[in-house]
Amino acid sequence: MQAIILAGGSGTRFWPLSRRRRPKQLLALEGKRSLLQETFDRLQPLIPAQSVWVCTTTMLAEEVRRQLPEVPPEQILLEPEGRNTAAAIGWSVRSMPPEAREGVVAVLPADHRMGDPGAFRGTLAQAASAVEERDLVMTLGIRPYRPETGYGYLELAQELDPSTGLSRVERFREKPDAATAQAFVDAGRYLWNGGIFVFRGTTLLDLMKEHLPELSEGLEEIARQPERLQELYPDLPSTSIDFGLMEKLDNLGTLPLDCGWSDLGSWEALAEILEVDGSGNGSVGDVLALETSDSLLVADSGTVVALGVEGLVVVKTEDAVLVIPKERSQEVRTIIAALRERGREELL
Amino acid sequence: MQAIILAGGSGTRFWPLSRRRRPKQLLALEGKRSLLQETFDRLQPLIPAQSVWVCTTTMLAEEVRRQLPEVPPEQILLEPEGRNTAAAIGWSVRSMPPEAREGVVAVLPADHRMGDPGAFRGTLAQAASAVEERDLVMTLGIRPYRPETGYGYLELAQELDPSTGLSRVERFREKPDAATAQAFVDAGRYLWNGGIFVFRGTTLLDLMKEHLPELSEGLEEIARQPERLQELYPDLPSTSIDFGLMEKLDNLGTLPLDCGWSDLGSWEALAEILEVDGSGNGSVGDVLALETSDSLLVADSGTVVALGVEGLVVVKTEDAVLVIPKERSQEVRTIIAALRERGREELL
Repeated sequence: MQAIILAGGSGTRFWPLSRRRRPKQLLALEGKRSLLQETFDRLQPLIPAQSVWVCTTTMLAEEVRRQLPEVPPEQILLEPEGRNTAAAIGWSVRSMPPEAREGVVAVLPADHRMGDPGAFRGTLAQAASAVEERDLVMTLGIRPYRPETGYGYLELAQELDPSTGLSRVERFREKPDAATAQAFVDAGRYLWNGGIFVFRGTTLLDLMKEHLPELSEGLEEIARQPERLQELYPDLPSTSIDFGLMEKLDNLGTLPLDCGWSDLGSWEALAEILEVDGSGNGSVGDVLALETSDSLLVADSGTVVALGVEGLVVVKTEDAVLVIPKERSQEVRTIIAALRERGREELL
Repeated sequence: MQAIILAGGSGTRFWPLSRRRRPKQLLALEGKRSLLQETFDRLQPLIPAQSVWVCTTTMLAEEVRRQLPEVPPEQILLEPEGRNTAAAIGWSVRSMPPEAREGVVAVLPADHRMGDPGAFRGTLAQAASAVEERDLVMTLGIRPYRPETGYGYLELAQELDPSTGLSRVERFREKPDAATAQAFVDAGRYLWNGGIFVFRGTTLLDLMKEHLPELSEGLEEIARQPERLQELYPDLPSTSIDFGLMEKLDNLGTLPLDCGWSDLGSWEALAEILEVDGSGNGSVGDVLALETSDSLLVADSGTVVALGVEGLVVVKTEDAVLVIPKERSQEVRTIIAALRERGREELL
């Protein structure tokens, strides 16, 4: 089995820690390995380093190579610019030698967290079997534990294997409103779309030829003239693998993934997975919290001191500090927009 | 008239901006001149630079000289270590040439703020006249505008001059409880002790000889053997000029000072004197405040960004950030104690 780690994203939700040149997947949010490194680590020993491909952008190349010295450098693919997930996945598969792309390929976002890597590998191996034995395109779905309105949902059709929970996917349901999300959770027939796909490489390329012919032709052009990558890649159609391909398939299957998954979509989401002190405070780095509760204090550089605060996120980097109520930490995007509007690109 | 600026204090109330080597009086809290520089500036043109003396410590010498290039270097007196105000004032007066100490001397803390320097100079000149014409030791008193429990009060005796408000001081009243403070404010016969004194230099030395004989003898010893300063000064008795001398005098007079005085005793006190935006936020440095109100945001280095917070003080320096509710900003001392307890001297 080959793995493609998608590591070209520009995740800004952890500003001021995340920056254009240091997006979320390159951050060690829990203080040890980066999310990219943990994504690589949790594949071991199922998918060894020589079968791992990383798709990222030229801007992030140096740091990705530094973080993953085990991955063969020629398997770290550099997009001249991001063209969304369909192009990244198609190009990565097309870049593999024939014997690799004729086998099973797993696609993994580089910026998610999984608390139980062993459970993840188990489900990934089951998905690979389903691809080989049943000729399915597989997606791993996360069992929803709250009526989240920020994710897409997979609506399940018939169950194919009660022992593993393998099911066909009836259809994709995009980000629902709160009432619909609650109904999805209650129904028990919906999973969160975690962006993890498993398929036979050649099958994917065939499906792209059928459903995304312009993209498919562009990828073949690049394969014929790899020296023109810089010129051709930016012209590839930009579409997500979900919208562009997966939603159109009638042989899409899914397995429920139960491994402490989090997409770490905000500072609040990070606070939920960190160990907390007796007052409910999570901390990273050199922090002193006095009479403080339910807060997340992050010192990427220097020292953070709080006295008498509650429910706050405080993040200090060398050049900036952010203070925001924890339940509003999704609104970091408002800050990014405000900084951009004020021409403060150096802070982004 | 000569001026002695007492600039040896170790003010830590503006941590993390104030540090041992950069105490409050050396900070430009309003973003321009430091409190020490403003203390010097507001004496002009009444007391020119060649009549200004600064008493500070060896540790702060370089920065004090840098901030006050106008003051003759030999008039920047360096205590080997701080021995409280009686020693600092006595030593400064004894260090003046005879013709200077036979004249009027004003003693000024280096870390107070006055909104109206002209009014201050007017009252100072009146105090000098009272010293010369009535042979009084003078202290300038601040008319209390709130029942402050953190200051000492001067209880007034008979009024000597209705045109200026010149009065004798009946006695010192140390930091009162809240009810007593309110009674003082209501009575109208009490002023805050602002630590500003005006006297004839030789009179002060005579009074020290009478009331603080050990200190007086120590100062004479230093005058006889100035080369032994490092050895003799640390042995001087440590007492404040208020307790050690002023409280014992029966010829103490006072003039009410009405010049927008603040001792800037906390971040909250600074917030009160800064200009605020439409939401009541004061800021110093590079600050972005979104949906934030009634807060004080200080960026000594880099950028401070707040979204959705209220009534907070946030201060960023290169190596630290402090977050504390504005009304608890007096409790910075708790933080200093906690850092000291944890052996974090490098942050103090």
